[in-house]
Order: sequence, then C-alpha cells, then structure tokens
Amino acid sequence: MLIATKEPVAKLNEWTAIEIVAAIAAGRTTCEAVAHACLDRIREREPEVQAWQYLDPEQVIAQARARDRGGRRGHLHGVPFGVKDIIDTCDMPTEYGSPIYKGHRTKRDAACVALSRKAGGVLMGKTVTTEFVNRQPGKTRNPFDASRTPGGTSSGSAAAVADFMVPLAIGTQTTGSTVRPASFCGVIGYRPTFGDVSCAGIFESSRSLDTVGLFARSIDDIALHRDVLLGAEPEPVPAEVPAPRIGFCRTPWWPQLEATTQTLLEDAAGELARAGARVEEVALPAGLEGIEEAQRWISSYEFARNLTWEIENHWEEISEALRNRKLKDGLSCTLERYREAREFAEHCRQLFAPLLRDYDVLLAAAAAGEAPVGWDPVSHNPVYQVWTAMHVPLITLPVFEGPNGLPIGAQLIAKRNDDRKLFAVASWIHRQLLRTN
Amino acid sequence: MLIATKEPVAKLNEWTAIEIVAAIAAGRTTCEAVAHACLDRIREREPEVQAWQYLDPEQVIAQARARDRGGRRGHLHGVPFGVKDIIDTCDMPTEYGSPIYKGHRTKRDAACVALSRKAGGVLMGKTVTTEFVNRQPGKTRNPFDASRTPGGTSSGSAAAVADFMVPLAIGTQTTGSTVRPASFCGVIGYRPTFGDVSCAGIFESSRSLDTVGLFARSIDDIALHRDVLLGAEPEPVPAEVPAPRIGFCRTPWWPQLEATTQTLLEDAAGELARAGARVEEVALPAGLEGIEEAQRWISSYEFARNLTWEIENHWEEISEALRNRKLKDGLSCTLERYREAREFAEHCRQLFAPLLRDYDVLLAAAAAGEAPVGWDPVSHNPVYQVWTAMHVPLITLPVFEGPNGLPIGAQLIAKRNDDRKLFAVASWIHRQLLRTN
Repeated sequence: MLIATKEPVAKLNEWTAIEIVAAIAAGRTTCEAVAHACLDRIREREPEVQAWQYLDPEQVIAQARARDRGGRRGHLHGVPFGVKDIIDTCDMPTEYGSPIYKGHRTKRDAACVALSRKAGGVLMGKTVTTEFVNRQPGKTRNPFDASRTPGGTSSGSAAAVADFMVPLAIGTQTTGSTVRPASFCGVIGYRPTFGDVSCAGIFESSRSLDTVGLFARSIDDIALHRDVLLGAEPEPVPAEVPAPRIGFCRTPWWPQLEATTQTLLEDAAGELARAGARVEEVALPAGLEGIEEAQRWISSYEFARNLTWEIENHWEEISEALRNRKLKDGLSCTLERYREAREFAEHCRQLFAPLLRDYDVLLAAAAAGEAPVGWDPVSHNPVYQVWTAMHVPLITLPVFEGPNGLPIGAQLIAKRNDDRKLFAVASWIHRQLLRTN
Repeated sequence: MLIATKEPVAKLNEWTAIEIVAAIAAGRTTCEAVAHACLDRIREREPEVQAWQYLDPEQVIAQARARDRGGRRGHLHGVPFGVKDIIDTCDMPTEYGSPIYKGHRTKRDAACVALSRKAGGVLMGKTVTTEFVNRQPGKTRNPFDASRTPGGTSSGSAAAVADFMVPLAIGTQTTGSTVRPASFCGVIGYRPTFGDVSCAGIFESSRSLDTVGLFARSIDDIALHRDVLLGAEPEPVPAEVPAPRIGFCRTPWWPQLEATTQTLLEDAAGELARAGARVEEVALPAGLEGIEEAQRWISSYEFARNLTWEIENHWEEISEALRNRKLKDGLSCTLERYREAREFAEHCRQLFAPLLRDYDVLLAAAAAGEAPVGWDPVSHNPVYQVWTAMHVPLITLPVFEGPNGLPIGAQLIAKRNDDRKLFAVASWIHRQLLRTN
C-alpha cells in the first residue's frame, strides 16, 4: 500500500483513502476525526449538491468510534464510503430511487458493503440514484454547477466523491452509469472486468450487463477498494511503468461528440505520444455495427422481467419515463430477439478481443462533452454502450476542462482481466496529462 | 396449450397444471377446490415428507378464492405451486435454510414468483432447502422411503411435486440441485439454458452458475411454466416428432455409477434405438478434464464473497459443514485461481458445443443410483457438474426403477438455446421408455 510520506496539506475530508489509512495507522488522526471532517463538509454543501438519500451523522460517528476502539485493522480502516441507494445495507434504508421503496430495509448488507466494512470502512450513508437505475433523475445536482445534471445513474456517488464529502463511493454500471457521472463530476470512475466483483445484494437491472462501479479521487484508492471487494491482499499500483501502447479509438460515435471534446481527445493523444507512448489510431473491428441496439434489447428484456412484482403491484408509482421507454421496450421484446441480441453481444466480444492484443489500453471519449444543463441523467448512451457490452474493464480520468470550465473525462479501456495493468497505465497517462494541463 | 379432452380420473391434487387450467376454464372445478385437494394431501402426508418450510392453509385458500372471483385469466390460473425457500416472496418468510434468517421477510417477490402469480398461479408455500443451498440438509424425507434423502438442494420442491402436494415447484441449480432431487424423488426436473430465466430475488450462490430449476410431473407442464417465466406466449410441446438422434454419453464418471444404473441406461439406449432413434455412443471432447474442479472453484469463490455479511456477523450460526468445506475452499481461493477456472469453463463450453451438432440430445445418468439411505443431500457431484458448467438446458425423466424399487432418472442434455427441442425430444423418449417398462 502507498504510504503518505508527509502529512497532506488538504483538509481531512480531502484526503485520499490511502492517506487516511496511513495517518490513522500512524496515530496522526482518528477514524472519528475523519468522519467529522466529512460530515462537516456534507453539512456545508449538501443543501446545494443533494448527494445523499440517507445519512445519519450519529450513526456515522458511532461506527467511527467503534473503529477507534480497536479490533481488527483492515485495509480501509476508518475510511468513509458512500453506497448507491440500490445496494442493500442492513442498518440503513435502501429505496432504489422509487417511492415504492420508501423506508425499505433489508436484513443483510450487499457483498460489496460487507466486504468494505470488513476492511474497516465507515459507511457514511446511501447516495442518490435515479429511479431503478433508469432515466428518472434523483435530486442530486452537479457540484460544479447546480443547474446541470451530475449524470446518472450513480449520481450521488459521483457527486459526493467530487465534492470531497467522502473519498470513496460505490455505484453500478449497466450502460454508462459509472463512467458518465464520473466524467460529468470530474472524478475517477472504474468499471471492473464483468463478473469479478460480486453484485449479490444489489438491485438487479440486467444480469448480463450489471457490474459494481467505483468512484474515488485517486487511482491508487480505486485499486485498493477493488482489492478489498475481491477479498484479495492489496497490491499497490506501480509508480513507474514503461511508456504504454495506446490505441486511440474515435469509434463510430465520434460525430456525436462536441467539437471541444474531439479536440481535447486529439490533443491528449498527441501529448501522450510526445511523452513517449506509442499512440495509434484504431477502429472498432468490422461486425460490431448494431451493438448498441443489442445492448438495449438485452438490458430492457432482463429489466422488464426483473421488475414484474413492481409492474403488477405498483404500476402507478412507476414514473412515466420508465413505463413508456425501458419497460415498453422490455415487455415488447421476445425471447428470440433477446437471445439473438445476447448471442450477438457474445460474438462481438470475440471480434473485439484481438484489438487489445497490440495495445495496453484504448483511449476514447467518456462523454460527449460537459454535463448538460438540466436533469437528463442518461444522455449519449452510445458513447458507453459498446465498451460496457464488451465486458472489459474501464476507467475514466478527469483530465479535461470543457468550454464552461466543467470537467470532461477521458476513458481508458483494457483487455478483460487486465484491470491491474489498466490501473498502472492509467496512472502513467494521468501523470502525463496533468503535467501538460 | 394442451387441452385435456376427458376428465382425468385421478384426484384433483394429482392433476397436471395443464389439466387444472383446462378444467377451471371449462367450469368443471374451481381454484379453491384444487387448493383444497392439495392442502388435504399435504395434511395427510406432511408429517412424514416434511417438504414445507412455510405453509399457511388460510393464505392459500384466500389466494384461490381471489382467483375464483375473476379478473385476468393467466396461463397458470388456479395452479398451486411451491417455491424453494431461498426465493423471495412478499407475503411469506424466506429463510434460506439458515437459523440466521428465521422469520426473515422481503418486500418484493422474486421475478419467477411474480411471473408465476401474474399468470394466475396460487403460491402454496415455501419448500425446504438445504442451508444456503449447500450440504447441511433440511428436514425433508424422500417420499418413497423416509429413511432416505430426497436429494438436495431443492429438496422440498422435488418431494412436494413427487408426493402430489403440488403440480409445480420452483427450485434452483448451481451444481446438481434440480437434477439430483428430481431423480431421487421420481419427478421431472428441468434446468433452462443459463441466463434465460431471471434469478432476480433468489439467494445468490454463484452468479456464473445459478439458474432456476423447475419440477413437475409432466413435460408439458414444465414447458408451460417455462414460458410463463419467460413472459412468453405458451407454445405446446409437439405431440409427434421424428425419431431423434441421441448421443449416449457415459462420461468419464461412468465407473462411479452403480451397476444397476449402468445397466438401466444401456438398456434404455437399446430400447430407444429399437424404437427408431439413431443412438450412438459419444465421448466428451478431449480437453474437458478438470471441469469438475473448475466448477468447484468458481462456485466456492463466488459463494464465499456473497456470504460475507453472514460470515462477519453470524459465523457461529453457520453449520460446521458449510464452514469447513465450501467456505474454507472459497476463502482460500485466489482471484487468479478463480479467473483461471472461469476462463477454463468458458473454454470447455466452446469445446463442448460441436458435440451437439450431430445429436438432438445427449442421454446420460441423472444420478449414480437410487436415493441413498441417510441425509447427505449433495452426493455424486461429478455426475452433474459437467453439464451444469456447460450452461446447456437439461431435463431429468423418472423412467427407471432401482434395486429397492426407488426411482432413478435419465438425464437429457440439449444444445444451448434448444430448450424447446429438448422438450419435444424428451416427450418422445419418455413415451418410448414408459411403453417398455
């Protein structure tokens, strides 16, 4: 694990998870002091950002004090973390962003929550989600500009980390629900290799596509939290790696990006080449045309069946947006069309795999541009769909600034199972691009 | 849908789902009368069989009366069904076979329960499961011989259908949890193509392997229930099909079968050939050696992480059997070993697929022999592991009688996505083998 060699100058709530753990271990601060710093920040900023669906300061302080009293020291000892409100927690409500689940509680923690707590994490509260991980927005505002969306569907998780309310938060991604809000809020967002991190205890949207998503303000923190969720011994991200081989992939959706975003990405590719990376333009392999359509059928078919109880018993409490789009799609989709889409996605994964043989990562857009004004939480799905459907690990780095001074992310894509290499290369890229900014 | 052309002579509780639906539609019986007949049978036999973890006769009658009062008529209108007690139900407890979950209730129905109810099914109650779908048995006895196991882990679901308590029951399968108890209890057990039927709201054992499993006393009922769970319009199983091409697969685990089982399978292969089928001996393709080991690592790694909350908070209430085997395996398994096993299983599926190009189904053992004396619910895993790991649809037919007069099943395996053909061919095979018995 990285050891902070000197006391960070930032306020406690701005520290990274790794800095917090090291400082507590060295006796330079306490779990309670860290919790108080985060709660102070939340008290100050929550009226504007509205990242939290549930947060009880007394409950947080009680957890932190219990950590300070001793017992097993885990790799997240004393680190406050937020959890998207579709993820079960035994001591806080889980409301799925829906009035149907007002005050709903579960007996157990989701696996990702239990593993984070086992490592010593202090659960701050539940972060705002859109309704059932869909289009109907929650209350959260973009921390950089309250007239804009934070992006969805992991809206509160991204905003809370961006606004220094917590160093870590857990979200999910079925289409672009981690990458998009990370880009809009200017934090690091990570989607693991499909299947690696348990989704047990998380509201199931689409089993063929759902993954956990992680938010943090440093790549090292992302890597640490991932190891905790795998139940693995943490391995630090290497400080130095050889200059990587990068495939710059405009994708067929390039024309949908704003002109500024196109320029920022092109400039970044140039900077990375000048820094020593081998940067080449690559195209998606032929045969992937239609993948975004397939992804949509898979997710809507599975979602509509998963939501049967709510459809049958609480139809009137489901938003029009959800009824008229996703559910309409899903209920009209036949088994044959669904299976065809599922087989096509599998075929695409096989077509796609060889592209990453010659590159450590691909570089692509993480969003069309800055967070748009208004509340649409799920804009520009095609930018995310293809990568999500490939089941590969993804990371978004907050390296660009758009025309209105708001963050835009760069997305890096690695080979299935290459999550560790993704972190190492992302660190290298992050350093080069921050240097030039 | 098949229409019963004459009144069945059996008692109401012995009718198939299709017979019940037709008789209710024709006004020859009522949902309430059917429910009473099943409850009477349960009252008579439950002290010996102990298939039910939760059953409230008044709640059942109230549901049946509501169906009789009218409203939408679904494809399971008035059909009583049982549900394994790891599957969430909004109005009955869900206890996972564990004292930790005594009296535990969930707000919503699992997707498979909600879809069965949407089609008009009457939920009878929760059927006994082993502890967290593992080795620690529940209280259920084999209906044919109370000194023997019903098989697990869907013990109560299989026993309840076998004993004419309900025509349909839902279980699950991660290794052999549907095929095995179906064989031991002499009913039809079906595991769908992996991924087809939603597992949302079902206790997650191993996401890479878990499926729903269905129990019934007729193949037509299985096909009907499957269509309901897919949200698809039911299609009857064709009454006539050409004599099929059958691959008789002894598998490398042939020596583990009892001699009687070997003879029964060989005789059946002969009978089917005489009835006109093209029957050929086939071997598993080279390269699948070690698949049962891989299946074990996948399921134990995923299970151990999913169970983190219970391990952290209720260790003393977890059985020794579970702590010392599955959890020990799972907690000791590294990410690298797990991923290796997962990749190997995927590789095996690709190796396996061509074998089914030349055959409509494979014929194999569904169990080593009759249900053994005692309570071990998960004997002879290798017989099931390979097929489960292949993600293909499976059906077990109760066509054999062992040396003690107890049932033994024959297992049929079809190509991924070929579930409908599997039903058609299984019907043909069932007719031939019953004719010769």
